[in-house]
Amino acid sequence: MLNEYSSKFWTCTILFLIVHKLLHSGATMQHTWLYLLSGLSLSLVLLSRAEEGLEFPNFDGKDRVLDINERNYKKALRRYDLLCLFYHEPVPASKGLQKRFQMTELVLELTAQVLENKDIGFGMVDAQRDAKVAQKLGLEEVGSLYVFKDDRIIEFDGELSSDTLVEFLLDVLEDPVEIINNAMELRAFERMEEDIRLIGYFKGEDSCWYFQAFQEASERFQPYIKFFATFDKSVAKHLSLKMNEVNFYEPFMEEPAILPGRPLTEMDIVEFVHQHRRATLRKLRAENMFEVWEDDMDGIHIVAFAEEEDPDGYEFLEILKDVARDNTNNPYLSIVWIDPDDFPLLTTYWEKTFKVDLFRPQIGVVNVTDADSVWLDMSNDEDLPTAEDLEDWIEDVLSGRVNTEDDDEFADDPENDHYILEESDENPDTDEEDDGDD
Amino acid sequence: MLNEYSSKFWTCTILFLIVHKLLHSGATMQHTWLYLLSGLSLSLVLLSRAEEGLEFPNFDGKDRVLDINERNYKKALRRYDLLCLFYHEPVPASKGLQKRFQMTELVLELTAQVLENKDIGFGMVDAQRDAKVAQKLGLEEVGSLYVFKDDRIIEFDGELSSDTLVEFLLDVLEDPVEIINNAMELRAFERMEEDIRLIGYFKGEDSCWYFQAFQEASERFQPYIKFFATFDKSVAKHLSLKMNEVNFYEPFMEEPAILPGRPLTEMDIVEFVHQHRRATLRKLRAENMFEVWEDDMDGIHIVAFAEEEDPDGYEFLEILKDVARDNTNNPYLSIVWIDPDDFPLLTTYWEKTFKVDLFRPQIGVVNVTDADSVWLDMSNDEDLPTAEDLEDWIEDVLSGRVNTEDDDEFADDPENDHYILEESDENPDTDEEDDGDD
Repeated sequence: MLNEYSSKFWTCTILFLIVHKLLHSGATMQHTWLYLLSGLSLSLVLLSRAEEGLEFPNFDGKDRVLDINERNYKKALRRYDLLCLFYHEPVPASKGLQKRFQMTELVLELTAQVLENKDIGFGMVDAQRDAKVAQKLGLEEVGSLYVFKDDRIIEFDGELSSDTLVEFLLDVLEDPVEIINNAMELRAFERMEEDIRLIGYFKGEDSCWYFQAFQEASERFQPYIKFFATFDKSVAKHLSLKMNEVNFYEPFMEEPAILPGRPLTEMDIVEFVHQHRRATLRKLRAENMFEVWEDDMDGIHIVAFAEEEDPDGYEFLEILKDVARDNTNNPYLSIVWIDPDDFPLLTTYWEKTFKVDLFRPQIGVVNVTDADSVWLDMSNDEDLPTAEDLEDWIEDVLSGRVNTEDDDEFADDPENDHYILEESDENPDTDEEDDGDD
Repeated sequence: MLNEYSSKFWTCTILFLIVHKLLHSGATMQHTWLYLLSGLSLSLVLLSRAEEGLEFPNFDGKDRVLDINERNYKKALRRYDLLCLFYHEPVPASKGLQKRFQMTELVLELTAQVLENKDIGFGMVDAQRDAKVAQKLGLEEVGSLYVFKDDRIIEFDGELSSDTLVEFLLDVLEDPVEIINNAMELRAFERMEEDIRLIGYFKGEDSCWYFQAFQEASERFQPYIKFFATFDKSVAKHLSLKMNEVNFYEPFMEEPAILPGRPLTEMDIVEFVHQHRRATLRKLRAENMFEVWEDDMDGIHIVAFAEEEDPDGYEFLEILKDVARDNTNNPYLSIVWIDPDDFPLLTTYWEKTFKVDLFRPQIGVVNVTDADSVWLDMSNDEDLPTAEDLEDWIEDVLSGRVNTEDDDEFADDPENDHYILEESDENPDTDEEDDGDD
C-alpha cells in the first residue's frame, strides 16, 4: 500500500519548492525550472506504485505560461484553440506579495501541463506594464482570469485550483450546444434539474438561421449555462417544442418558460437569459462560487445546507424545491443551496462561522459583509419543517422581521455573535406547532 | 475580485514552508510550528475578501498530530471518539524520504485542524520504534491509515489528501445505520443506486436482538457499505421486506437479494457482504480508489469511462447497467466505471496512458501491472454499441480473445503500446454491423 502519498499534496509541494527557489536564488524563471528538474527526480521515484493506472500528475517544472506583451499577444491568440490569460497587478516589491503572484502562476503552470495536448495557451498580463494589451484585449478586472475562445471572452470566477480550472477548461473546449438525439439522451437532459438549461427544436444543424442564432447565443454563456438542441421530431414532441422554439428551464422547475419573440434572434435569447439567470434555488459550485456569492440580495444570502446523499438532506432539498417552485416568480427570492459534500474543507469552517451542525439540514440568512447569520431552529423537531413553514420563515426574512442584526445587542461578546434564531414575537406559537400550523 | 488565491494551493504552500523549515533549520517540530506562526501572518492577510462566508482554511501551524508510543496510546484511544493513526516506516536518513514522511504528517495536520471540534485524535506509529504498540493495536500494513472507532479498526485506502480524508472521517462519525422513516427518505434510499446498500425491517431500535446484530454488522463496513433500517410498516411493505428480514442491493441492480438464514446473526450478514462485495459494475471513488484498483481480476480491469452529466456518457452508462444486470451472477465480471468529472487531474493522464479520447465514452481492458490497454473501437459509429455488442466484447475479454498482449509485437516501439483494438479474426463483420448483429 503506497497510497500515503497524496498526489495533490505532492504537486503543491513541488510547486512550492520552485517558488522557494525563485525567491531565494534570484535566478531567471527559465533557469529555475531547469535547475529543479534534476532535484525533483528523487521525489518522483517515491511515487511509483506496484499497480499502474492511477498516477496523479506532478508538475514537471517545464515553463508553459507565457509572459504576454504587445509583441506576442496576437500570435498567442492565433496559435491556440483557447487562450487563458491571468490579468494581474504589477509584480510587487514585497516578498509576501511576490509569493502570492507566483502561486497563481504555478496553479496555471500545472493546469497548462495537465492540458498540454488540448491546444490551450496560458499567459500573464501585467496591468501596468501591459496596459495597452489589456485594453486591446478587453481585460477589465485585475485579478480575473479570462479565457479567449474564437472571438469571445469568458471570465472565470471560481476557486482557482488546478482541478477546478482543468474541469472548467475541458467544459469550455466542448461544443457549446449539445445535441439531443434520442429518448435516452432526453432522459439525461431531464435529469439535469440543478442547472439552467435551454433547449431548442430546429430543422437541422446546417443552413438554419434559427439554429445559428441559438448557437451564437450559447457561446456567450458557455460553460455556465447549458444549451441543448434537437432535430428529432419525437424528442421535440415529448418536450412540447414547436419548430424554432426555445424553452428555458430554471433549476428545479418542472415547467419551462417559452422564450418570447419570433423569429428569436441571438440578442432575444441573450437578454432573456440575463434577465432570468438568478434562479429561485441555485446550487453553489466550485467553478463559480465567488460569482454566486457576490450576487447577493441587498447584502444577504438565504443559504440552505443539505447533503443530497443523506435521506434527511434529500428530504429537505425536496421541500426547498417545492418552496422554489411556489415562489419562482418572486424576483426577491434566491436561495443558495450548498451540499456540504462538495466542500469538505469548508464544512467545519461553516459550522464554526455560522454555529450550526451540518450533519443535519439547515437554512439561514447570512450577511455577506461580516458572515453574521441567523438560522431557522429545527433542532427540536422530529420532522423537518413543511414547505409552508419554510415559506412563512422566508417571508419573515424578506420582510426583515428575521434578520442578522436583532441578536447583536450581545455583539460585544464574540461568543454570542451568531445565535440560532429563537422564534420572533410575531409567531410565538410556531415553535410548538411546526407541523400543524398549515 | 480576489479569487485568484487558490485556497487549497495556499494551504499546501504554507505546509510546504513548514516542511522546508524543518529540513533546513534542524529545529524541533514544536519550535518550527511556533516559529512559523509569525511568518505566516503576512500571507494570511492577503487572503481577506470583500465578502465573507467562503474562506478556505489555511494551516495554522499548531501541532495536533501525536507521536504515539507505549506510554500514550491507551490514553489516546480513551480520549477521542475517533483515533486516526498513520502506521509508517521508520523516519529514514535521506532527505528525500524524510520529505515524503513529513508531507503525510502535514496532510494529517491540516485534517486535524479542520476537524478540531469533532473529537478526533491523530497520531503516527513508527513501525520499528513502536513495533510493540503496533502489534497491540493490530496495525498490519505499513503505510496504511487506521481509524479506531469504539473497539473497531477501519482501514483507509483512498487518496490521502485532506479533502478526501475529511469527507471520509465525517462519514465515519455518523451513525453506521441510517433510519428510513418515510416515503421521502425511501425515495432518497432508492436513488442511491451507485452504492452497495443493505436495508432491514425491524420492530424497533431498542431491545431488538435482530436490529442489534444488523447494527453490529454495519459497524464492520462503515463507511464503505451503507446500512439502512426501517421500523415503518409501509416503508417495509414498499420494499417487500418481512419483519427481521434484510435485503442486499448490489449497485445498479433493481432487485435485491434476500439474505439467507433465520435468525440472521451478525456473522451471517458479515459473511454475505464479504461474498457479494465485488459488484458487477462499481464506481471508482477517491475514498477507496486504490483498494478497488488493487482488487483486480487476474491482473486486469475492465474499465469504462462515462461522464454521467453528458448525454452520451449517460446513455453509455445506462447500457453498462443493462449489461451488469444481465450478468450479475457472473463472478468473473466486474466493470470499474470511472466518471472523468470526479478526477479532473487524472483525465488527461488517462487519455495519454490509454490513448483514448475521454470526451466520449470508452470501454477497455487495462493490465494493472503495466497500464497496457486495449479499447473497444466505437469511433466510427454514429450510435453507441448495444448491450448485446458490449456483452459479445466482454465475452471476448473474459475468454482472453481480447487482451492487452496481442498488439505487443510492436512493443519495442513505445508509440505502439496501446493500440485501439481492431476487430479480431473471430468477428470480421462486427465492424460494419455494430448495430444490426443482434
